Amino acid sequence: MDETRGTRVICFLSDFGLGDDYVGVCKGVISSLLPSANVVDLAHELPGFGLEYGSEVLEHATRYMPADAVYLAVIDPGVGTTRRALALRTSGGASLVGPDNGLLVPAAETLGGVEEAVSLTDDRYHVHPVSSTFHGRDVFAPVAARIASGVPVADLGEGVDPDTLVRLELPEAGTIVPGGVQTRVLAVDRYGNVRLSASQDTPGFEFGCLLKVDTPEGALKCRYAETFGGSAFGDLLVVPDSHRRLSISINQGNAAKALGLKVGHRVRLTLLETGAPDEPGE
Amino acid sequence: MDETRGTRVICFLSDFGLGDDYVGVCKGVISSLLPSANVVDLAHELPGFGLEYGSEVLEHATRYMPADAVYLAVIDPGVGTTRRALALRTSGGASLVGPDNGLLVPAAETLGGVEEAVSLTDDRYHVHPVSSTFHGRDVFAPVAARIASGVPVADLGEGVDPDTLVRLELPEAGTIVPGGVQTRVLAVDRYGNVRLSASQDTPGFEFGCLLKVDTPEGALKCRYAETFGGSAFGDLLVVPDSHRRLSISINQGNAAKALGLKVGHRVRLTLLETGAPDEPGE
Amino acid sequence: MDETRGTRVICFLSDFGLGDDYVGVCKGVISSLLPSANVVDLAHELPGFGLEYGSEVLEHATRYMPADAVYLAVIDPGVGTTRRALALRTSGGASLVGPDNGLLVPAAETLGGVEEAVSLTDDRYHVHPVSSTFHGRDVFAPVAARIASGVPVADLGEGVDPDTLVRLELPEAGTIVPGGVQTRVLAVDRYGNVRLSASQDTPGFEFGCLLKVDTPEGALKCRYAETFGGSAFGDLLVVPDSHRRLSISINQGNAAKALGLKVGHRVRLTLLETGAPDEPGE
Repeated sequence: MDETRGTRVICFLSDFGLGDDYVGVCKGVISSLLPSANVVDLAHELPGFGLEYGSEVLEHATRYMPADAVYLAVIDPGVGTTRRALALRTSGGASLVGPDNGLLVPAAETLGGVEEAVSLTDDRYHVHPVSSTFHGRDVFAPVAARIASGVPVADLGEGVDPDTLVRLELPEAGTIVPGGVQTRVLAVDRYGNVRLSASQDTPGFEFGCLLKVDTPEGALKCRYAETFGGSAFGDLLVVPDSHRRLSISINQGNAAKALGLKVGHRVRLTLLETGAPDEPGE
Repeated sequence: MDETRGTRVICFLSDFGLGDDYVGVCKGVISSLLPSANVVDLAHELPGFGLEYGSEVLEHATRYMPADAVYLAVIDPGVGTTRRALALRTSGGASLVGPDNGLLVPAAETLGGVEEAVSLTDDRYHVHPVSSTFHGRDVFAPVAARIASGVPVADLGEGVDPDTLVRLELPEAGTIVPGGVQTRVLAVDRYGNVRLSASQDTPGFEFGCLLKVDTPEGALKCRYAETFGGSAFGDLLVVPDSHRRLSISINQGNAAKALGLKVGHRVRLTLLETGAPDEPGE
Repeated sequence: MDETRGTRVICFLSDFGLGDDYVGVCKGVISSLLPSANVVDLAHELPGFGLEYGSEVLEHATRYMPADAVYLAVIDPGVGTTRRALALRTSGGASLVGPDNGLLVPAAETLGGVEEAVSLTDDRYHVHPVSSTFHGRDVFAPVAARIASGVPVADLGEGVDPDTLVRLELPEAGTIVPGGVQTRVLAVDRYGNVRLSASQDTPGFEFGCLLKVDTPEGALKCRYAETFGGSAFGDLLVVPDSHRRLSISINQGNAAKALGLKVGHRVRLTLLETGAPDEPGE
């Protein structure tokens, strides 16, 4: 950890809109408690599935954040109900703060597993009055700031059994079917790349192979390539995306528009022929 | 204040677009003058009424920012006219920088009132050449950086009488009418929640009561609830919003679209029946 | 440089979407390597021409960033091809990191010229596994963090001859034609201001003069003004923009919509009459 700063990085994910003041006010709370806070905005106003996609993004980000980061994750449709508010300490040294709706668990498992779980019942660590609709500001942000400044997780409330945490299934990698994979659209990014749930490690798919792509609007063929290098302007390709899943993309074009694909649509990829030996591969 | 940093947090609000470079260039100016600057982006590209809504957001944020924050607020339709550029010091210890168009005053009053007001006439503190259209970059950002690094407000220009500051009426809480409140739409957030000007403290409205909602497109009934807890998917509710005003919302739906409501629309809320004693309340 | 921090500011430009996690993950990589990093987001999800407009924005920003800033610029349509990955050290003290596609060169020249250029071939400084599609995260962000923390550019890979760098023509200021300038639309900002390639210093254009504006949809007349001050609500004007180029704007209106202008459209400005002596000017 950096001595000149003395605090842990706070990695902030939410579904708050970027044009609203929700994110900014949460950061105000953090800065009030810890003026030296270093907040890294992982993502806000995420496209896609809400809780499920947020959970996937959070889990993926753990590979790139500081090992001792404090994750502040607020996708919280159950705010104001009896759902618990949580702080988790992982055996890898990271901590996570957010609602008990499954959002945190996959990331916590990748970070070494939950070593300690606390329900945030000690309201001395909250901002008052605590609203019924915005625990991001009133509960989760101040707690993340306290953890980043050194308060032990155990001080923040009552310990809970990690086995009782709500779990959410991460987007499965898709169902392996004869000759391919039955998958679906997790998200569409701003370039129009169609991010599928299928893993980059789908059995039988090698760079250079030819795939049949069945979408709700019809079927077409395209190559599975490691990269756009070698393809021409406008070529349709399947490529690995930044999360090690498969993406349908058009070289400098918008694949989602071209294929009429949206989040949740089902897509089947089938192997038609393996790559020629002179195709680019690795 | 945090000793390891030695500078005050700069809380930055503007109506600059998030896809433009205006915000980034202002931060470049701040970092050039004060590399250790801690800028908290309160909000940019705000939806809603412009100056009026920006003023409301700024005032509200004062509850959550560090007590000694420097507010940099740039919603400036009069840039290049004779409108004054201001720095204000409040008795609570915070400072504010921005145009003399009313944007700063409600926040300054909540922060203890204006102790000292200065017109930013000393151009040694500006970035040259000063453009006629972008004082955010050339005047306000460098002045905010100077204040954050310890330059007294009095050094920045000529003192002005606080009574001469342009004042803007904050969105009134709505007009109390027999049995209810005549109000209007301040903003619509990205979830489709319809933020009204009416206060959470409207007389006679208790959690659990039934309200009639008159909109330009018709009338309907709904409950006033503290939270979505207890409501079902798709239920229409009036709930307190994050600014202690009333919001019309649909549980996991888009109320603005469903009701055809936009910023500026007039809405009347009328009490139909008080809450049953077994309704959730506080 | 600020002693309490000890690191150089990283100025980050990309074409990543603000609703995606690409920017956040790059910052995670930076914070992992350098927890005290101070990243200034210059712009992401830029409107306009991609590489060409990004290059213009980056070059312009050099006037406002710290003199020793590290520029991290990722607009990288050639990722995964043989295009080189670069770090440049300029004689002015700044450094730049990004793809060898011309994006960095105009900024480097404004920053004093390229003193040293290195191809990022030393993969000890990269994040592994290096993906084929996201060098922003795996190559450029970690290298920018190393430079900001003091690693010499020469250590990052093989030196290359600056004369071999790919060069991109910056948007020319427009072609001077009899009585005016033939120009085109570089970008449209969120207010609907139409940013032209023509320079503020177009010969013969003085504040107060009357211009003919030929667009693909027709011709109209308007004044060239230093500012909106003196114009009325709804007036169409040509004004200098924040980059010292010309912009077609409507006082509190949307000029792009009103005139049907989009990025890439050609516009001719012709001087009709010089400004009356009593017009505002400088």
